[in-house]
Amino acid sequence: MTSTTAQPADLESFSAELTGLEIITDPAQLTKLSQDYYTFSPILQPLLNDKRGDVVVRPTTEAEVIQAVTACVKWRLPLTVRGAGTGNYGQCVPLQGGVILDLSKMQAVKWVKPGIACVEPGVKLAALDKETRGSGWEIRMLPSTYRTATIGGFIGGGSGGIGSITYGQIRDRGNLLAVRVVTVEDEPRVIELRGDDVYKVAHAYGTNGIITELEIPLAPAYAWAEAIVAFPDFMTAARFGQVFSDSDGIIKKLVCICADPIPTYFAAFRNVIPVGSHCALVLVAESSLEPFAALVNEYNGTICLQKSAQEASKGSTLVEYSWNHTTLHARSVDPSLTYLQTMFPSDKELKLVERMYQHFGDEVMMHLEFIRMGGEAIPAALQIVRYTTPERLAEIIRYHEDHGAFIANPHTFVLEDGGRKTVDVEQLRFKERVDPYGLLNPGKMRAWAERK
Amino acid sequence: MTSTTAQPADLESFSAELTGLEIITDPAQLTKLSQDYYTFSPILQPLLNDKRGDVVVRPTTEAEVIQAVTACVKWRLPLTVRGAGTGNYGQCVPLQGGVILDLSKMQAVKWVKPGIACVEPGVKLAALDKETRGSGWEIRMLPSTYRTATIGGFIGGGSGGIGSITYGQIRDRGNLLAVRVVTVEDEPRVIELRGDDVYKVAHAYGTNGIITELEIPLAPAYAWAEAIVAFPDFMTAARFGQVFSDSDGIIKKLVCICADPIPTYFAAFRNVIPVGSHCALVLVAESSLEPFAALVNEYNGTICLQKSAQEASKGSTLVEYSWNHTTLHARSVDPSLTYLQTMFPSDKELKLVERMYQHFGDEVMMHLEFIRMGGEAIPAALQIVRYTTPERLAEIIRYHEDHGAFIANPHTFVLEDGGRKTVDVEQLRFKERVDPYGLLNPGKMRAWAERK
Repeated sequence: MTSTTAQPADLESFSAELTGLEIITDPAQLTKLSQDYYTFSPILQPLLNDKRGDVVVRPTTEAEVIQAVTACVKWRLPLTVRGAGTGNYGQCVPLQGGVILDLSKMQAVKWVKPGIACVEPGVKLAALDKETRGSGWEIRMLPSTYRTATIGGFIGGGSGGIGSITYGQIRDRGNLLAVRVVTVEDEPRVIELRGDDVYKVAHAYGTNGIITELEIPLAPAYAWAEAIVAFPDFMTAARFGQVFSDSDGIIKKLVCICADPIPTYFAAFRNVIPVGSHCALVLVAESSLEPFAALVNEYNGTICLQKSAQEASKGSTLVEYSWNHTTLHARSVDPSLTYLQTMFPSDKELKLVERMYQHFGDEVMMHLEFIRMGGEAIPAALQIVRYTTPERLAEIIRYHEDHGAFIANPHTFVLEDGGRKTVDVEQLRFKERVDPYGLLNPGKMRAWAERK
Repeated sequence: MTSTTAQPADLESFSAELTGLEIITDPAQLTKLSQDYYTFSPILQPLLNDKRGDVVVRPTTEAEVIQAVTACVKWRLPLTVRGAGTGNYGQCVPLQGGVILDLSKMQAVKWVKPGIACVEPGVKLAALDKETRGSGWEIRMLPSTYRTATIGGFIGGGSGGIGSITYGQIRDRGNLLAVRVVTVEDEPRVIELRGDDVYKVAHAYGTNGIITELEIPLAPAYAWAEAIVAFPDFMTAARFGQVFSDSDGIIKKLVCICADPIPTYFAAFRNVIPVGSHCALVLVAESSLEPFAALVNEYNGTICLQKSAQEASKGSTLVEYSWNHTTLHARSVDPSLTYLQTMFPSDKELKLVERMYQHFGDEVMMHLEFIRMGGEAIPAALQIVRYTTPERLAEIIRYHEDHGAFIANPHTFVLEDGGRKTVDVEQLRFKERVDPYGLLNPGKMRAWAERK
């Protein structure tokens, strides 16, 4: 592995070559732009707390990216790419200092065709959605941080989100059409990856190329109504979530199930969700509200909040109570809380969900997010965990794995130790081609460190 | 059961009360308007061949429907409702003569909102699609007869079709929002059914109410490209169909798999599909063509025909080679052929499909149509059968059922003996309310004949 600790003199020389580019060296800003939301993890907190880049460069064009990369390579500086820093695994925290390449100013929407948009990586998801809605389209899936998160950051470090109940995850063929990548070589090249090749750089934490343009597929933009449905017992809420997800005739975008006491962390809904209830937070097409109500009725749920798409477009939306915003709200009440990421196996009876729910009780509060995986709706989960010790957290994870749940560990910044579990040989080979000096986000790809 | 044989005098009195309505008594027309495509079945052919209505009435408004119904009830005439007569089970063949109520002139599209259309029953599906496409919507699912079939006939006697791979079947909650029904009483009433109540009359062959208006959900209208993919062996083609259906990131509308020698019946594709090939006929969104090609590549398929949406909109489309049009083309070459309707169980490995394929060989030529059922893509099938005797056909059906396939028998005109298998108590109760004299399509609902 190439040693990559930046020397002050090199940094100065580097900066001197970036005439015309925005450069940030203000310490407070540097600290801020070296962080993401890894603070959700008590394991990552001490590991990443003191990690800082030495300089932030904010290019506005691909040409400026190439200019910055050329200088980085010349002075052999570590180079960590960053979007809005809304990730949770320290993906964009520079472990070895060096240069932070902040792409949030590359915000061009190059074109929008029916079903496809071509964008620069710094476009905020909310802004892109707003732009494509004009022609009847929207992004297929979004993280709960969509207001600030960038498309490049989402593709580089995310997996799925609101919309995944219909379209699956980013990793599923068809959910990313093309990427343009700048290599980190003495003479940087621009490579276009299309088809299955896009997965050489998707979800690679920016370790093997700098994404400067993306073609992403769009979804038809429905008018999304929002609803909170309360249930007296958790398993009824969970089964409602499964059946709703499996209702092919009802168009939906979010099926989030929160066990009591999670709803008590939602200050805004304190007078909305009955005390002691388990609830479903859903986005459903307005044109499907009538059959949706029939389904709620079948499961004896109580719709305690319903907003039209028009109403939901003002102020905060239920999106910002789902996925990892659920964790955010819980932590804003009790910062000692943390979370897990789990894929439960496909099972209409949700037996393993029920078993884990009963086994852990309040220690691991059940929060399901239904998503499609290989054509089937399964409960993913971002359980909220009452954290005590690293050992106990490891034990909780092991218990899940021993019983057949897949844990995408959010308490590691190493690519292969999170959701992937194995080395992605294609990603490694691609890194060898485009980042021969190992400058990109050093320390994140285990396969690179351990190769040969 | 009320006896319902029309007397000539009653018919004359009946007709005399229909001033202003279109009435048809021309024998050739009467014969034509007493038929559907039950001729696909060698079992139904002799049973229905001589069945004819005595008079056809063609109302253009709900008021005219009520006028006709009032007269029918007065003279106790059997009343059989008809759309375009594109069904295959003799649904609209009048077993006891009497009046045929042809609703094909009630063609108003009352309104189209985002995601919902309100229509009269006689609207042709192709015409409705054309009208809604202007605002970016289309019908969720279509039979292969969409050019001539009416929406009322489809809801009254159909189950699903092209589009069911995304939205499931008509019976799935959300795929029919409301129906307006005229009752057959001394003083006919108009009843609106919404929510789950719509299933009291959907797929009831017009035995329990006359549908005069429907609210149906719409789907976003993609630009649908068409492709034929050839495979050297059937099970690879079938597995491709399953995986394509399960590819949540690739937008599709049709996944039809035809085993050799079925493609040889497609005269138009004689020089397109390689001899001896098994093929997939698909509709895929233009914006998904690139990932689709990657999937085809993974399964070593050969795209032997591909048309853009623009090209596909001219002339015949692959839709008209799928579902029961497959049977139509086969029978146009060899009229002794017939077919089956099968639901194979959910199984990604398609073991039962493979077993049946190998067991029957050419006698039961495999034709799969993937559809969504309860959130999962399963292979439905409309196998083409080399017919020999009724006994052998029954044996083939029994063999399928004994091995766990569900047969929706297309060789019966009795509602409960086809796809339903059991009495639908809700439909029976509704018939008791709206058709006390049992005039509607007599002989089709077994539960009515056998009640008490």
